[in-house]
Amino acid sequence: MTTTASGYAAQSGDAPLAPFSFERRDPQARDVAIDILFCGVCHSDLHTARSEWGGTLYPCVPGHEIVGRVSAVGAEVTKFAVGDVVGVGCMVDSCGHCPSCSEGEEQYCETTGFVGTYNGPDPVLGGHTFGGYSDHIVVDQDFVLRVGHAEADLAAVAPLLCAGITTYSPLKHWKVGPGQKVGIVGLGGLGHMGVKIAAAMGAEVHVFSTSPNKRDDAIRLGARDLIVSKDEEQMAAHANSFDFILNTVAASHDLDAFTALLKRDGTMTLVGVPEHPHPSPSVGNLIFKRRAIAGSLIGGIAETQEMLDFCLEHGLTADIEMIDIAEIETAYDRMVKSDVKYRFVIDLATLPQAG
Amino acid sequence: MTTTASGYAAQSGDAPLAPFSFERRDPQARDVAIDILFCGVCHSDLHTARSEWGGTLYPCVPGHEIVGRVSAVGAEVTKFAVGDVVGVGCMVDSCGHCPSCSEGEEQYCETTGFVGTYNGPDPVLGGHTFGGYSDHIVVDQDFVLRVGHAEADLAAVAPLLCAGITTYSPLKHWKVGPGQKVGIVGLGGLGHMGVKIAAAMGAEVHVFSTSPNKRDDAIRLGARDLIVSKDEEQMAAHANSFDFILNTVAASHDLDAFTALLKRDGTMTLVGVPEHPHPSPSVGNLIFKRRAIAGSLIGGIAETQEMLDFCLEHGLTADIEMIDIAEIETAYDRMVKSDVKYRFVIDLATLPQAG
Repeated sequence: MTTTASGYAAQSGDAPLAPFSFERRDPQARDVAIDILFCGVCHSDLHTARSEWGGTLYPCVPGHEIVGRVSAVGAEVTKFAVGDVVGVGCMVDSCGHCPSCSEGEEQYCETTGFVGTYNGPDPVLGGHTFGGYSDHIVVDQDFVLRVGHAEADLAAVAPLLCAGITTYSPLKHWKVGPGQKVGIVGLGGLGHMGVKIAAAMGAEVHVFSTSPNKRDDAIRLGARDLIVSKDEEQMAAHANSFDFILNTVAASHDLDAFTALLKRDGTMTLVGVPEHPHPSPSVGNLIFKRRAIAGSLIGGIAETQEMLDFCLEHGLTADIEMIDIAEIETAYDRMVKSDVKYRFVIDLATLPQAG
Repeated sequence: MTTTASGYAAQSGDAPLAPFSFERRDPQARDVAIDILFCGVCHSDLHTARSEWGGTLYPCVPGHEIVGRVSAVGAEVTKFAVGDVVGVGCMVDSCGHCPSCSEGEEQYCETTGFVGTYNGPDPVLGGHTFGGYSDHIVVDQDFVLRVGHAEADLAAVAPLLCAGITTYSPLKHWKVGPGQKVGIVGLGGLGHMGVKIAAAMGAEVHVFSTSPNKRDDAIRLGARDLIVSKDEEQMAAHANSFDFILNTVAASHDLDAFTALLKRDGTMTLVGVPEHPHPSPSVGNLIFKRRAIAGSLIGGIAETQEMLDFCLEHGLTADIEMIDIAEIETAYDRMVKSDVKYRFVIDLATLPQAG
């Protein structure tokens, strides 16, 4: 059995997103049905909708930074009840039994790979999954997150489901904490959450940006200062001093300028895949200080819950600009120009109902 | 006060090594004077003598895989006595007080950098240091290693001082041990020691080589098998299965073929600086399994002693081909063609005495 959902979809890579009706399954035994309140707008949404990465399945309903309210639960659901405020992030399923899934790292699922909240293979209805630019969604309870603090600004919580966990997970994995000097490269949707979270973890945070005019914002968000990455003198003053650098910039750039700032045994972790390769990083920069360059992908479900709890305990949410869903193409165009501080969030109350 | 030493030196990048006399300091209070018995021949010797890296100070006496016998000690020397069999590796001094030196990681000395056994700034006489292609050397006791097992083949011990520690240190640092699958890329002077040491640490070792005819040797040295790195099918069979890969190949090559074989959270550590950059490694390969690419440089003095003790306890020495010092240019030419199994060692008894 299915229920008709209303949403916004791209019908092709060059078509603007427009109203779209489609079917969602009715909740099965372990499913949670969620009325979507807010959905953050991630760069992945844009890349997928516009087929910039290839592999987009149309119609494409993007959105994987979802906050909503439980409207129904299946007979075997134990974790959630009708009325609960919940979140859904980048994943709605995984194999559940491979080593990574067993260890709570579903994002690295080694058999099928995780099922994306959109553009993944729908495990129940067949076809592909549809994301959060829609009025409701039905998700296995194991992939639903609890938003514990009723007083939180739910629209500003939504971006935690991707931007928050993508930065929290590597900061946690590489053990960022008090006494450490941590760099965040890029002050966008990911970077601004990285600053807030790393500062809340107790680290001394420095933002690297090509834009000196972001300094006030960087400091307001919790950074000690902003280092202009194009200024060789400013950069040199920080040589060999960082314990960890989280690099959120997906555009091709010179990694060596940043690895040179790591202490011995420091790691720079990349969370963005560049369209064109970065210039090949210096091996000498790695060898002469035993440094590492690593990558990290979102985070597991248990860790996403931990991140939500951490952020809400520390009063951390995203800095957002709320939009009507009809403004999504304008928002995409502004994102391409980095003209957003720091995340667009769609108010799904603005969605026209299927008639 | 100084004593004349006999050695072999290059007078310029295009001159063959030839007999050369020079002055060494007499032992100061904390110094150990060592009559050199054997000196391994490292690729760095060749690159430096022939000025392939630039920065070579002439006359150049290479050699940093030194085994010899103590001939005299300074008044404050407590660690060694006349007659002891000792080793000297890549370093003969460092600042001694920076964080890395304080932590026993002198190879990463953060102020002056470590003083190379050759081609470094001589901290006592001025000018530059002269290495182990010579009859004796004088070294601060803190940079002298004890060769504990009198019955060891001392010529075959010599390469442990660079090839041994360069592979032992990353294997130890990245916690290689039983139950792990470890890859060694390249079966040369470094690689053959990496195989022996990783196997002795209890890991399941696989050698990657472009030469299938090295398989018997790989297995004899302790590997489970040899994977032909040019054979895509063989490589694909090992996807996502390695805990750690030690990459000893300095020539520019495709790193992605190896990172794709790492498990989630696996690291590939590079110990060679390529003359021309490797093709830029895939960021996706890192992100989608939280993998890392790292570098590692020789090892600290305490760790070098630990490595020597470990190797001699496990009966591990290098596979060597002994040469007269007059054969050094032929040896270099053969090394360029990888025609050595697996390390040349100079018998310093063949050194003509200064007349």
